[in-house]
Amino acid sequence: MVTAREDAGDFAALMEERARIADYLVRHMREVLGERGGYLAKTTEHMLSAPGKLLRPLLLLDACRAAGGDISRVFPAACGTEYGHVASLIHDDIIDGDDARHGRPTLHVKFNLPAAILTGDLLIFETFLSYTECHEQGVAAERVLQAIRTLSRTCIEMCQGQALEATIAGKLDTTEEMYLEVIRLKTATFCSAAGRIGARLGGAAEEAILALGNYGHNLGMAFQIVDDLLSFIGSTTALGKPVSSDVRNKRVTLPIIYALQSRDRAVTQRIRDLFAADDRDHPEVHGELLHVLNVTRALDRARAVAYRYTARAKQQLDLLPYSEARERLRALSEMFLSRDH
Amino acid sequence: MVTAREDAGDFAALMEERARIADYLVRHMREVLGERGGYLAKTTEHMLSAPGKLLRPLLLLDACRAAGGDISRVFPAACGTEYGHVASLIHDDIIDGDDARHGRPTLHVKFNLPAAILTGDLLIFETFLSYTECHEQGVAAERVLQAIRTLSRTCIEMCQGQALEATIAGKLDTTEEMYLEVIRLKTATFCSAAGRIGARLGGAAEEAILALGNYGHNLGMAFQIVDDLLSFIGSTTALGKPVSSDVRNKRVTLPIIYALQSRDRAVTQRIRDLFAADDRDHPEVHGELLHVLNVTRALDRARAVAYRYTARAKQQLDLLPYSEARERLRALSEMFLSRDH
Repeated sequence: MVTAREDAGDFAALMEERARIADYLVRHMREVLGERGGYLAKTTEHMLSAPGKLLRPLLLLDACRAAGGDISRVFPAACGTEYGHVASLIHDDIIDGDDARHGRPTLHVKFNLPAAILTGDLLIFETFLSYTECHEQGVAAERVLQAIRTLSRTCIEMCQGQALEATIAGKLDTTEEMYLEVIRLKTATFCSAAGRIGARLGGAAEEAILALGNYGHNLGMAFQIVDDLLSFIGSTTALGKPVSSDVRNKRVTLPIIYALQSRDRAVTQRIRDLFAADDRDHPEVHGELLHVLNVTRALDRARAVAYRYTARAKQQLDLLPYSEARERLRALSEMFLSRDH
Repeated sequence: MVTAREDAGDFAALMEERARIADYLVRHMREVLGERGGYLAKTTEHMLSAPGKLLRPLLLLDACRAAGGDISRVFPAACGTEYGHVASLIHDDIIDGDDARHGRPTLHVKFNLPAAILTGDLLIFETFLSYTECHEQGVAAERVLQAIRTLSRTCIEMCQGQALEATIAGKLDTTEEMYLEVIRLKTATFCSAAGRIGARLGGAAEEAILALGNYGHNLGMAFQIVDDLLSFIGSTTALGKPVSSDVRNKRVTLPIIYALQSRDRAVTQRIRDLFAADDRDHPEVHGELLHVLNVTRALDRARAVAYRYTARAKQQLDLLPYSEARERLRALSEMFLSRDH
């Protein structure tokens, strides 16, 4: 158990590292795109100059450190992982028809659809190019190839997860299992991969790679459940997109699934009506939906599931020897569980 | 100089290899996607079950052979290269708003926009996964990494080329140099990469890698110029998309650029009017545009440029020792120059 003070120290270190990664991402991308006079340079910079939580690169770097690896060799892969994530956000925003993210217009809205599709593609290719740079930094070619293999397999699963999500949108008979499968594919496998890749590039033994992969998986599950909760309870400003975006897109997330399990037929019918209403992203309708989710304790139940995944993530860390990085990974899981945006 | 009979033999061998690649693409993809019950399996199969010209994998495999390499080790990269190409077609069709390709509805039309974006992404990831398989087939990890580096750099250029093309669409002051830069970025660099990658994975010396890269570059330039010519003179059925699709999208290609260089002001004004007309993809308007391109000899001039690139491609082959593969690459460049679809 970390004390409050150590905890604060870990958070501060995380924030510093986050700033370092954010700085590198923009500089690195300017170098790559600058050479060619910059078609797509503006769009790429628009995305990278307002970095998000940087969960995946932070996870990858501390997994590398926790395995005793040298992060200077692995830094390009950490950044590459973020490029891949940003690419998925750009394409996701097109698919979901979202107009805003982090309080700024999405790429296809600020620029146009072709520029957004191409910038996403470009960032995917940049992901793999960055991975190859780890070899130039001294990581064995075999290991880099294994990392690329893990990454591409994982991203194929992400695409399948997003396709599955689009398929079940609006289906109120979505089960808890189906929801968990979607978030496993679209979020948890990528976090698991970040843990495994960081560990592998850092030269970890197979057991440590497995533990850090399982840590990432459970962290990713908790992260996405919280993310989906914040669609109902987060502040618009903090999340940067309308709180009801998920409702508008008829995403049947854990709170909705739990609320529909209520034995009170009037309650479940009300949810069905609200969820199906054309004006479902109207603040008043949204407020009533939130009320029902509270009354049925659906939000509390969903939060409890996120806690459970976070606890499992931390259990995996106990399989590793003590290190500052390991404790920072513990802090990372707590930080993302308790966030409000 | 090959005789007509040898030439026919080369063509037949090319056709056989094409069938082999096409078969492998579908089988391989079914294996990859089958595991997961198949989200996106239908869309992917729709694309791969009607293979196109397979220019890039054919080029990659014969570049490998011409360099004395073992193609059984390199086959996954050849297929991966085609996945990458197909991905770019899917995203391109969205960007261009094209409804048909090879006589079949495009993916976003037959399915929907989210499925098309995600299938393109999935195929990009499959490209890199396939490349890593060359290592399992016995190619040294170092070489595979170099190939992945070349591939990702090249694909970044392709995205930039497509963005540049979108930027200059409809601009009748587009110069020959700008057009050549667009097709270099969007087509020739990828063909150059296919030549270099095949040679490198096959274990070629640097000079042979360079020659096969230059061959690919020149072949790609010729290929794209012919492709753009076919927008005016190809038959709709053979090309599978309306002949005037480029005109509808206001692509200022070489014939248009040459025709606008005419000293007859009445002629150039007519082209401007036709090109700007709202009904420019009406068969009658298109017919008149074609007439002007013939009168100004713009089509002949563009074809002459394609011949010149083809000749340069073949010159590069003369730098290599004789092999059946080298002669097949010669046939490949001739086959694509004289095609009518």
